[in-house]
Amino acid sequence: MSTSAAGLGRVAIVGAGQVGTMLGLALRGVAQEVVLADRRGGALRQSLERGAGDRDVSVEEAAGADAVVLAIPVPEIVRLVEELGPQVRKGALLMDTGSAKRTVVEAMRAHVPPEVHAIGGHPLAGSERSGPEAAAPELLRGASFALTPVRDDPEAEARGRAFAEALGSRPVVIGAELHDRVVAATSHVPHLLAVAVALASRNLPRHAVRDLAASGFSGATRLAAGDPGMVGGFLAANADAVRDALKELRAALDRAEASLDDLDGLRVLLAEAAAAREDAGG
Amino acid sequence: MSTSAAGLGRVAIVGAGQVGTMLGLALRGVAQEVVLADRRGGALRQSLERGAGDRDVSVEEAAGADAVVLAIPVPEIVRLVEELGPQVRKGALLMDTGSAKRTVVEAMRAHVPPEVHAIGGHPLAGSERSGPEAAAPELLRGASFALTPVRDDPEAEARGRAFAEALGSRPVVIGAELHDRVVAATSHVPHLLAVAVALASRNLPRHAVRDLAASGFSGATRLAAGDPGMVGGFLAANADAVRDALKELRAALDRAEASLDDLDGLRVLLAEAAAAREDAGG
Repeated sequence: MSTSAAGLGRVAIVGAGQVGTMLGLALRGVAQEVVLADRRGGALRQSLERGAGDRDVSVEEAAGADAVVLAIPVPEIVRLVEELGPQVRKGALLMDTGSAKRTVVEAMRAHVPPEVHAIGGHPLAGSERSGPEAAAPELLRGASFALTPVRDDPEAEARGRAFAEALGSRPVVIGAELHDRVVAATSHVPHLLAVAVALASRNLPRHAVRDLAASGFSGATRLAAGDPGMVGGFLAANADAVRDALKELRAALDRAEASLDDLDGLRVLLAEAAAAREDAGG
Repeated sequence: MSTSAAGLGRVAIVGAGQVGTMLGLALRGVAQEVVLADRRGGALRQSLERGAGDRDVSVEEAAGADAVVLAIPVPEIVRLVEELGPQVRKGALLMDTGSAKRTVVEAMRAHVPPEVHAIGGHPLAGSERSGPEAAAPELLRGASFALTPVRDDPEAEARGRAFAEALGSRPVVIGAELHDRVVAATSHVPHLLAVAVALASRNLPRHAVRDLAASGFSGATRLAAGDPGMVGGFLAANADAVRDALKELRAALDRAEASLDDLDGLRVLLAEAAAAREDAGG
């Protein structure tokens, strides 16, 4: 299999929301054809109007494409893999875009025939906004695109890499379990923290919060503005890793709280955190 | 006292970092003269080069201006109020820019003669970046500028309002205690959370974190990139309110964690958080 973009053939994207539309727009003129499927007619129409696909198809027709990409919330990905997996065309690439990978990869292993090249996918790009109008394909350029293998299938990996490169992204092959552990700490727990900050703000006089909430509050709660279906989906699918990461987070938070009365110790901790952020490329 | 900008007279800003430089730049051509004082010669020179002041003065000379603004970390504000407070020219405005107000207002009440119009100030604008080169005066435009009264002094309030308006900001008069309680929840706790997320990321394989850390991680740890002296200063000065706000935060976080296995409940919680954020103007 060539890793040239032309090798993608006909791509079917299931899910015409922010992520599916972003992928479709990035594949314009790169893939032979992009077709879109979405049971929500409104999103589908908007996404096609933005030019994210050449035409719409049913979810069942999507299974006949050369590359089938499931860009829907994780629980729906798992359900559709169970339902559609056995019907995907032999020799095709089956991928998803969910931000929790273990449950997806397990469903692919159990329900997708070995003649289909299945691999988990996760573009590390996008925003908390939802819907086709929020899609920003330029965010894919230079971003990581995680690929989590389902079974020993070099063809699946090669085609997953070619797909990521066609988007302008950098393919990163990583085990689903490690992926989920890292993303729990770097993304899923931050989602829960944003939710907690937003919820806790309700205990304060509303006028004072409105007057004093600045860019810090806006940034700290940004992830709480995401689509509840999408965010709830990956949090629930990754619950075990999220709980482990929360344990680490609470330990770090306890350490920070304990240093509040010790200005020198606090400064050292803050410098450590700034270094850790930079080290992580934050 | 007129609230016209010209009424500001000669303004002395003590502290030529991000905040002091931002104020100086915003007052260009508005105040009669802006003079800068900073014991760190490098910052002072850079700030003057950016045009944030007409000339530099010593901290002692700054005390002779019509309006004296302390734009330094909170513990240094408190120290300088004790040291300089008795020398401030009678009839002058004395203000600061710290993000924790109770300790500042108490120091002003104890050490500044009643003939000086002292009031706490806090521009709700700026970024986590430090130094004169990071100053962005356009952020002041339309931002809230909190004013926390020190004693019954309508002249201090009127001149504080005029100062905020001269910057293009919206003056918000609020008690120091309520200010500190709200800012603890909306800004100081988010700083500690950013620190905790950055520190907890060190427990994961570094290459995987670098590959998978996306905009969510970058955003969630942004506040951990602030100047340790500045951030440590306001966190330590507001330790009591921060601890109270952390208690609320932990309760909200426990609630979020408890809903991880209940997708419907999680979606409801996420929608609640998004509504709370919007309600707070986040």
